[in-house]
Amino acid sequence: MRMSELGATSGVAVATIKFYLREKLLQPGTRVSANQSDYTVRHVERLRLIRAITEVGGLSVASAAQVLAAIDSDEGLQKTFAVAQRVVSAPIQPEDVDDDAVARIDAVLEGWRVSPDNPGRLAAATVLTTFEGVGQFAARGWFERYAEAALLVAEADLDEVDARADRTAKTETVVVGTVLGDALFSGLRRAAQEHVSAVRYSPGERA
Amino acid sequence: MRMSELGATSGVAVATIKFYLREKLLQPGTRVSANQSDYTVRHVERLRLIRAITEVGGLSVASAAQVLAAIDSDEGLQKTFAVAQRVVSAPIQPEDVDDDAVARIDAVLEGWRVSPDNPGRLAAATVLTTFEGVGQFAARGWFERYAEAALLVAEADLDEVDARADRTAKTETVVVGTVLGDALFSGLRRAAQEHVSAVRYSPGERA
Repeated sequence: MRMSELGATSGVAVATIKFYLREKLLQPGTRVSANQSDYTVRHVERLRLIRAITEVGGLSVASAAQVLAAIDSDEGLQKTFAVAQRVVSAPIQPEDVDDDAVARIDAVLEGWRVSPDNPGRLAAATVLTTFEGVGQFAARGWFERYAEAALLVAEADLDEVDARADRTAKTETVVVGTVLGDALFSGLRRAAQEHVSAVRYSPGERA
Repeated sequence: MRMSELGATSGVAVATIKFYLREKLLQPGTRVSANQSDYTVRHVERLRLIRAITEVGGLSVASAAQVLAAIDSDEGLQKTFAVAQRVVSAPIQPEDVDDDAVARIDAVLEGWRVSPDNPGRLAAATVLTTFEGVGQFAARGWFERYAEAALLVAEADLDEVDARADRTAKTETVVVGTVLGDALFSGLRRAAQEHVSAVRYSPGERA
């Protein structure tokens, strides 16, 4: 299909498609004449993926380019996961994180195989420092119970990846799941908080 | 203590403290002369709370003002939860969300007491639409398993709130937990993903 049809089919403006081509988020079409290229359904799918990770996932174009490059590479799944995780995580410098907080998060994650520079480990330690810095304390195992729930979610993530047929499908699921999973979980957590509040504080009523 | 000492004790610049006073995030001190006020340890604690929810939680000053007003009000816990949830959630208009996706999320949350305008319910429906729009499908119960984990996390959240002594402490925990909980969970999820990947794909090695 021509550029104009690619725009109409994907719902993405032609100017935006040209921008994605320049930024190499979208592979070039097959050149059929001096000023025309042919695009396929793969281009439509890629455009949808770009919009999902930038609009719903909130990634910058530069970050989107990094995760798309990971999908297109021959890297193994663990490497693709690492790239996707780094891109969706706010950058944290290890030297900005309190050593004692990191040690306490490591105690929560005892037995987990997590590398020292895992962005999530440092993010969790930052939350611990902030939480206690405002006078809060975990009286009912808040951190340990979150870690248990995170393990269930990670198993669900990996089970979806395992169910995909080939490497390309698996890495796409890694990227989409990593980017969208945060939004899904925080949404469901808000629904669950309302439900649990209603059960505890208004047991007689129905929503 | 005087303004300068409040700055030194809290680690917040005096110009920033004056800005928070103007924006009513921080209550005024007790006036002791025409151009001096006296501040207490409560002001130091409030400054730490403002920084936690704006810097680690990523809230705007306007959003922070809303949740702090909820803490300072006489509203019940369910109302405070609702305010905190709305403030930390990206605004979604119900008419922008696909009805079929909402119905399918409602099926996932069957038996939960969730109001129609719960921001998390609509956010989850948006994720479902986006997920399937890029050709993904949940082959291993991704949505249901996230919902189960979200319920565990919400129980942990409410247990912490229940463990607090009085209304002010409970509402502070509601706000801090709602704001920081997303960052904590997404961090622990990344650590869990690395752990589960390592166990599945490199069973012989140790991290």
